[in-house]
Amino acid sequence: MRRSIATVCVSGTLDDKLTAAAAAGFDGIELFENDLVVSAWSPAEVRTRCADLGLGIDLYQPFRDFETVDDALLKKNLDRAERKFDVMAELGADTVLVCSSVHPSAVDDDDLAAAQLARLADRAAQRGMRIAYEALAWGRHVSTWDHSWRIVRRADHPALGLCLDSFHVLSREVSPDGIADITRGKIFFLQLADAPRLRMDVLQWSRHHRLFPGQGTFDLPGFVSRALAAGYGGPLSLEVFNDVFRQSDPARTAVDAMRSLTALEDRLGTRRLPAAPTLTGHAFTEFAVDGRSGPELRTALRGLGFTHTGQHRTKPVELWEQNSCRIVLNSAITGPHTPGTASISAFAITSDDPQRSLERAAALSAPAHPNVREPGEAELAAITAPDGTSIFVTHPTANWRADFLSTTTPASSLSTTPTDSLSTTPASSSPRLASTPAGAGAGLLVTDHLGLTQPFDHFDEAGLFYHSVLGLDDVAAEEYAAPFGLMRSRAVAGPNRTVCVALTVALLRRGEWAPAVADPQHVAFATTDIVATAAALTVPVLPVPANYYADLAARFDLDGDFVATLSRHGILYDRDPSGGELLHLYTPVLGGRVFFEIVERRGGYQRFGEPNAPVRMAAQRHRRLTTTPPA
Amino acid sequence: MRRSIATVCVSGTLDDKLTAAAAAGFDGIELFENDLVVSAWSPAEVRTRCADLGLGIDLYQPFRDFETVDDALLKKNLDRAERKFDVMAELGADTVLVCSSVHPSAVDDDDLAAAQLARLADRAAQRGMRIAYEALAWGRHVSTWDHSWRIVRRADHPALGLCLDSFHVLSREVSPDGIADITRGKIFFLQLADAPRLRMDVLQWSRHHRLFPGQGTFDLPGFVSRALAAGYGGPLSLEVFNDVFRQSDPARTAVDAMRSLTALEDRLGTRRLPAAPTLTGHAFTEFAVDGRSGPELRTALRGLGFTHTGQHRTKPVELWEQNSCRIVLNSAITGPHTPGTASISAFAITSDDPQRSLERAAALSAPAHPNVREPGEAELAAITAPDGTSIFVTHPTANWRADFLSTTTPASSLSTTPTDSLSTTPASSSPRLASTPAGAGAGLLVTDHLGLTQPFDHFDEAGLFYHSVLGLDDVAAEEYAAPFGLMRSRAVAGPNRTVCVALTVALLRRGEWAPAVADPQHVAFATTDIVATAAALTVPVLPVPANYYADLAARFDLDGDFVATLSRHGILYDRDPSGGELLHLYTPVLGGRVFFEIVERRGGYQRFGEPNAPVRMAAQRHRRLTTTPPA
Repeated sequence: MRRSIATVCVSGTLDDKLTAAAAAGFDGIELFENDLVVSAWSPAEVRTRCADLGLGIDLYQPFRDFETVDDALLKKNLDRAERKFDVMAELGADTVLVCSSVHPSAVDDDDLAAAQLARLADRAAQRGMRIAYEALAWGRHVSTWDHSWRIVRRADHPALGLCLDSFHVLSREVSPDGIADITRGKIFFLQLADAPRLRMDVLQWSRHHRLFPGQGTFDLPGFVSRALAAGYGGPLSLEVFNDVFRQSDPARTAVDAMRSLTALEDRLGTRRLPAAPTLTGHAFTEFAVDGRSGPELRTALRGLGFTHTGQHRTKPVELWEQNSCRIVLNSAITGPHTPGTASISAFAITSDDPQRSLERAAALSAPAHPNVREPGEAELAAITAPDGTSIFVTHPTANWRADFLSTTTPASSLSTTPTDSLSTTPASSSPRLASTPAGAGAGLLVTDHLGLTQPFDHFDEAGLFYHSVLGLDDVAAEEYAAPFGLMRSRAVAGPNRTVCVALTVALLRRGEWAPAVADPQHVAFATTDIVATAAALTVPVLPVPANYYADLAARFDLDGDFVATLSRHGILYDRDPSGGELLHLYTPVLGGRVFFEIVERRGGYQRFGEPNAPVRMAAQRHRRLTTTPPA
Repeated sequence: MRRSIATVCVSGTLDDKLTAAAAAGFDGIELFENDLVVSAWSPAEVRTRCADLGLGIDLYQPFRDFETVDDALLKKNLDRAERKFDVMAELGADTVLVCSSVHPSAVDDDDLAAAQLARLADRAAQRGMRIAYEALAWGRHVSTWDHSWRIVRRADHPALGLCLDSFHVLSREVSPDGIADITRGKIFFLQLADAPRLRMDVLQWSRHHRLFPGQGTFDLPGFVSRALAAGYGGPLSLEVFNDVFRQSDPARTAVDAMRSLTALEDRLGTRRLPAAPTLTGHAFTEFAVDGRSGPELRTALRGLGFTHTGQHRTKPVELWEQNSCRIVLNSAITGPHTPGTASISAFAITSDDPQRSLERAAALSAPAHPNVREPGEAELAAITAPDGTSIFVTHPTANWRADFLSTTTPASSLSTTPTDSLSTTPASSSPRLASTPAGAGAGLLVTDHLGLTQPFDHFDEAGLFYHSVLGLDDVAAEEYAAPFGLMRSRAVAGPNRTVCVALTVALLRRGEWAPAVADPQHVAFATTDIVATAAALTVPVLPVPANYYADLAARFDLDGDFVATLSRHGILYDRDPSGGELLHLYTPVLGGRVFFEIVERRGGYQRFGEPNAPVRMAAQRHRRLTTTPPA
């Protein structure tokens, strides 16, 4: 199907917007009148520019407050419309959006609305144009799709049809089911927007909080499929008013928009993408380190029970392992970098069909780029996530570990077939420490999840990216108050949580007063006995205040000895409504930005201990205050 | 009265919050439980720290979901309360806030609520403590202040009283009038928050959009005066949940908070400040320039009809004049500065009692600092506005112009008594150009307003600053969509608009993609004949697109010749509902940041042509694209 985007969806002047839409691969645009009004280009120049970029002008919008007026005002409104038709003729656009009136003097009279819209359609038809009538959710008298359809049906004019906007339809209580029964050819235009469910004024909700399909909670596939059932064959066009998209890089927003439509079409079956393969686990997480942060991380990894098992054949890259937990330290940092810092530069996941994973990513505007490698080394192609992290996709049996030379005395695990040791669930036959070199483990078995702070402008883009490109699903979403401002979090995971990424962002973009760790990242490892693990650690654990434990005991009515044990080891605690429990602890911040977490999940606890995040943040701030020498 | 602030009002850890509250001069705090829970200090250490800072702990909060439960849960809740009392004893706090229950199992039974709260009050009384019961606006059964009062009255326990929160009271429809009739001594605590009127879920409204008194639209003086009438003598305590304040510099937020309470007390009459004197006009606006931006501004000023009339005796500072419009170019820039840029560093206003203006500012935590000057020069003390701009306050007859040596051939205007030429309304006896040197004027008569972009974190602070410190009132407030994101604007002015400042800010803090001019500032001058003025200009005017005029004609049904005249001179147009008209034009951006505007107001138009701001922004972006050489 033809794919279009309204110019209101993205930031910038008309030039910025058209360039972005074309680069992202759109076929057409809806031209929002104000974008034309402020443009230095004449309508004819816009037409030429669009043609040069391969963009059609599929809709001109909006024309407001036309119908159910007295004769004098009707004449004025028809004159006003003629001027718009003049502009449309210059633009080469043939369809105009007419919104149901919000004018205080509009009257509730379907016959009058139908008659006046028919007169407007007559005028349009004379110029080879047509009218797409839309019920605004806050229209004065016409606010539901079925009401607009009754009026259009009554007018019975070939140049008058419906514009159906998923937001206006799905934000109201009237069922969209009947859309499938609309007379063939009478849906002139389909506008698509998703949104989160919010309890607020519908106009404010619409103007500030719309999202691209798949980023909210509306049933877009259900909406579009009903229009398709009614024979709709026009463009799928995005009309999304969103405060963040309005001011972020239009080139990126347009790519995000295109991805949302492609993924929607995949779900609808009107476009076939390579299916998302099953993801089977985290293979490794790579940290970029330098001469100062490298030693800090090495000490921490050793204290967490990791062993430095391998050294890359050709690069300054180290492999550290413990059971199925693997960390790669990469000292070959490229790009801008603050000395002494560390960051998660990449992570690798295993897919049962890596090639198809990469093909799907490419079809969703996330092309993979090959890893730079020497002859004989394993190929690891990487997709770039919205936060800039590289995601390597590899097969569980791929022998990327052969690129590393053993650094341990018994070269044991590296010389065996990698199948077992790369399996991301602990081998059932081997007790906790069996697959790692003797004496090195602290019971960390597998990567539980990654925690990645997202760039403010790209949080919703990130959610859609992980859903559509990797086929992950939401497993948690929270907003909470933290010491330095409100936070949003959203976690995505594959089936059985074999791959899991927790995304966080500040609810408002941070300003100059930002004493928290900037854009923290972390890796959480799972243990089945966090108390034994904690006892085995030789790395300092983030201190947890005594007040926390006093409050915990009161909140959850916990046994005193149990709380004492938690307190002794700096273990935090959470319980979900069905009794699942999380016990977890943190290291202090390393390399200015990263840290590790150890989690024990009991009784099917699925979340991430969000109520404890403020405790962690305050403790990390306290550590910074007490350990950073004064400048 | 005692002044307190809840720790939730400001950002940071407890240490940050207490330090900020004490520095701003508060007498006490409300300790929000979570701030204690995440703190590394024990309750006893918090008590010591507060005592050291001179802060009392006036309230411990909140205790939730206590009342109307079954016996088993009541016992648990009483145990839970005892643990809180333990913490309060350590803290030295004697009053705890109990919120009306939001628990799904709570029942609607006032007798039960009264009986159970009386039992809680018994326990509190045994420890010398007391219970302040508050109706949350979203409480399950108790959601209005009068309902909470019925329950407290029924319980009739000396250790049980009311906590009245202005947000919970004023966000509901129940009148606050009856508060004045509450039994003397039964209001235990008063929490103050203002808010804008929003149509949204009351819980979200409360948790994200509260403001300090005077920053929103609630009648705080009316609320507090009723409590005072009921004999309330406890603290005036701020409890403000605000997304921006939660993440901005706590030291500044606390000063803003204190200013709001001081101004409220001034209105209540419980604290007497020096009254705000009448402001009579803009004396001058000072631009900081350097060797590159200076020549650019000089050329523009000359082209706008200004004359370089004076040179400062001791500093590299020039005075430029045209009728009552005055610009000072200051090349003695201090502080960080990007070469080639210009900015508005200060503006001077005339007050009929400058000394009292400064005393009032000092009483509102905005102390004035004297201007650095040589012997014999005029003293100009400056107050610092929230955006860092200095505001000089001077008397209309003060002879600050004597610090400048004449640079014009006929040293005319500078040698006369300054009274006339400093008057900010055009002298009635003199036609437009009479008071400026011959041949130099373009009909600019007086400064109409300043336009200052505010730092994101301090927009609400700025509004309160101009209201309380200078006694200005809101004359306009808007939110609108602009090419690079949503904008908020708010204009403040004195009587007859003799002094007027328009404040703007992005609705969301700008990110990396920000092609608009960063933090633009401008001065608008008034003319009574903008077409004649435009014809006299020898400076390029910001080009306005033809599309704008085509749309304008259709929107306002304007005469073709009139629109052609506007178009010829790049004049923008707006009309208000009562027929008042604004005609205005802009210069391009100068020195990377500043520009000038010329306005003609007809028929009492009071606003600022906000609908045209997007046109200006797009044109400024276009000019940057076409005039900035590629990097």
